[in-house]
Amino acid sequence: MSKPKGFEKPVGVKDYLPHAVTKLRAIERNVLACMSRWGYEQIVTPTMEYYDTVGVASATSDQKLFKLLNQRGTTIVLRSDMTAPIARVVGSLLKDRPFPLRLSYHANVFRAFEEEAGRDAEFFQTGVELVGDPSPEADAEMIALAVASLQAAGVESFKMAVGHVGFLNGLFEETLPGRTEEQEALKECLLQRDHVGYRSILRSLSLEEGCRVELEGILRLRGGQEVCDQALHLSGSAGAKDAIRHLCEVWDVLADYGVQEHVLIDLTMIGDFTYYTGLTFEGYASNLGFPVCSGGRYDNLLAQFGRPAPATGFALKTNRILEVVEQEPDSDGRTFIAYLASERAAALAEAERLRSDGLVVVTHSVKSLGELTELRESFDRAGRTFDFHGSAYNELIVFGGGKGEGSD
Amino acid sequence: MSKPKGFEKPVGVKDYLPHAVTKLRAIERNVLACMSRWGYEQIVTPTMEYYDTVGVASATSDQKLFKLLNQRGTTIVLRSDMTAPIARVVGSLLKDRPFPLRLSYHANVFRAFEEEAGRDAEFFQTGVELVGDPSPEADAEMIALAVASLQAAGVESFKMAVGHVGFLNGLFEETLPGRTEEQEALKECLLQRDHVGYRSILRSLSLEEGCRVELEGILRLRGGQEVCDQALHLSGSAGAKDAIRHLCEVWDVLADYGVQEHVLIDLTMIGDFTYYTGLTFEGYASNLGFPVCSGGRYDNLLAQFGRPAPATGFALKTNRILEVVEQEPDSDGRTFIAYLASERAAALAEAERLRSDGLVVVTHSVKSLGELTELRESFDRAGRTFDFHGSAYNELIVFGGGKGEGSD
Repeated sequence: MSKPKGFEKPVGVKDYLPHAVTKLRAIERNVLACMSRWGYEQIVTPTMEYYDTVGVASATSDQKLFKLLNQRGTTIVLRSDMTAPIARVVGSLLKDRPFPLRLSYHANVFRAFEEEAGRDAEFFQTGVELVGDPSPEADAEMIALAVASLQAAGVESFKMAVGHVGFLNGLFEETLPGRTEEQEALKECLLQRDHVGYRSILRSLSLEEGCRVELEGILRLRGGQEVCDQALHLSGSAGAKDAIRHLCEVWDVLADYGVQEHVLIDLTMIGDFTYYTGLTFEGYASNLGFPVCSGGRYDNLLAQFGRPAPATGFALKTNRILEVVEQEPDSDGRTFIAYLASERAAALAEAERLRSDGLVVVTHSVKSLGELTELRESFDRAGRTFDFHGSAYNELIVFGGGKGEGSD
Repeated sequence: MSKPKGFEKPVGVKDYLPHAVTKLRAIERNVLACMSRWGYEQIVTPTMEYYDTVGVASATSDQKLFKLLNQRGTTIVLRSDMTAPIARVVGSLLKDRPFPLRLSYHANVFRAFEEEAGRDAEFFQTGVELVGDPSPEADAEMIALAVASLQAAGVESFKMAVGHVGFLNGLFEETLPGRTEEQEALKECLLQRDHVGYRSILRSLSLEEGCRVELEGILRLRGGQEVCDQALHLSGSAGAKDAIRHLCEVWDVLADYGVQEHVLIDLTMIGDFTYYTGLTFEGYASNLGFPVCSGGRYDNLLAQFGRPAPATGFALKTNRILEVVEQEPDSDGRTFIAYLASERAAALAEAERLRSDGLVVVTHSVKSLGELTELRESFDRAGRTFDFHGSAYNELIVFGGGKGEGSD
């Protein structure tokens, strides 16, 4: 094991340079403002949580949690999502606040290093939780707010795929009763969107023809309202039927929100969080293979924090959105003030005046009149943008060597 | 060791509820905007760094670093400040960007749990680094920008205490040559502002009278320009004299910035970071015993990251500022829209319209006309603010049971 070199950083984590930070901050600001307009109030929780409480309750598998021991010998984890920490706060600090609670966050979350290239060990999520409302309206509010949030983030073209954990569970329990292992294998294929693998497992199961057709049929259950109608006939399971009826109600609310064009019912959709209990959804941006947001209902999690309640929520995958959205237009430009020591007070006062007008101003002390003249000439040569020490400026003001007036 | 309960979080870390987050976010936004107007560009670095590089280079003592092993067996630390990570970036990703570099950040940093109550294990810092400029103007820019940043954060009354590592080093080496242990003991007293302890050590050292008086004299070296003049006569050490001359030049620049009223020369000031090499400063808010910002020059740190360069910077202690500043005025208010299912489309459309005007709107589906009437009556009774499910609203709009019009 070689010692890391001075300039190295750990595998799977990133530096964000000013250009990327400007974009990241704009996404964060715009999305949080959108969530705020929907009545969601922002909270901040610590990076570190107890393993035995939040760590265990989170949907992240044990080996993907970053663990450390504190000085008392208790195992601490770096949070892997914000849903479990918020559930903890709802059960403690906010335990006297009546439901429904609408909370939002922007936070970095952690997944232990994975050797596969390209997997981030730390990334940003911007999301909400709506706690204490079991209604189809609450599920629809999540999807409609996710649509509004992606739009606020600048994602122009996307689809929200909506499914229901209860439908797949009901269907599998009906067609493969008690065969948990096979059910899990099929679900894993659906999670990975591996339809070839799904069909191949189905063939290997020596099911009766009707069952096999039924289970293969769900791969085609993608679309609008009509998918619900088809699904109602596909499964006789009461659980599956309840799930579909709930989905139909949500669909109607989404129609009233006017966001149906962004929504696709996809009954093969299975949330990647083990704590989901109902409707789940994922947002896909055009030309991007991975989801930019995901969410769903988790009605059993809050009980682990002493305050049983239905809940739903979603998170934008802020880093991925960073890759999707167009660049923000550059700011108004930067002013460079160069001065001789004798004119320093005037130069710094002018800098203060311009900054209070909102301009970006860098001040620079020069030693001689010659240096000042050189700067002025190179600015005049440069035209619209003036490069100095690697930064671009679009205005130069010099103090000294004359009337101390601007040159622009 | 008892297992933590579900609602517990680790010692030394905090949850911030919406009220505090609103304040925290306002401070962050206003300070970063101020730094941006001074030409500082924001960067973001990872929470985790290698122990052998950034961990060792940071000014945090080893036992206060949070350490964990990654899956390759390398020791990782949670960053304890942003100066060392930024030095790493300057030596790697930004290695081709010419100096001076002006960089800003807002970040959470970590110090391993300390059993003493009240010490935070995770807290926020908002700061800048100015890399590649050794001039008194650069040092003065730090202090002037720290003043502007505290003002932007809403801290109304404060003093910036300015000292110089070179003065104390020169003076101690002149009066106590080679007696490193005693020098360190005296410095520790100054760091803790323990003047009684400082005097008591001096008495125990059996120094000649002249030396003792000289070393006691520095406790009175607090004030303006006149302190520099006194200090020039106090020490014959060349290092101490150089330090004082530099301080005088910085003082002149600060006069041109017009911020002298906020600045106090305090030659007993010793930065709490081991990497400081020159001018250091700390900001004290009125009626608060601990600094709200600290900074200084660290000309040797960058060499550890392969790009030797002079540098200076400071960080606001954002959490402490949170306690000092007055509360932001409440937002424009919140609107509650209640609707019967039959009027849902109209209600949601109205919510969208108001949100696009920037209002905060929560929508709520009711089951019956009676419920709607009750809401309306309790709103009318409530007067200016209407409380529903623990949230306050100052406008109610109902859809259903009539013309679907507002009631306000």
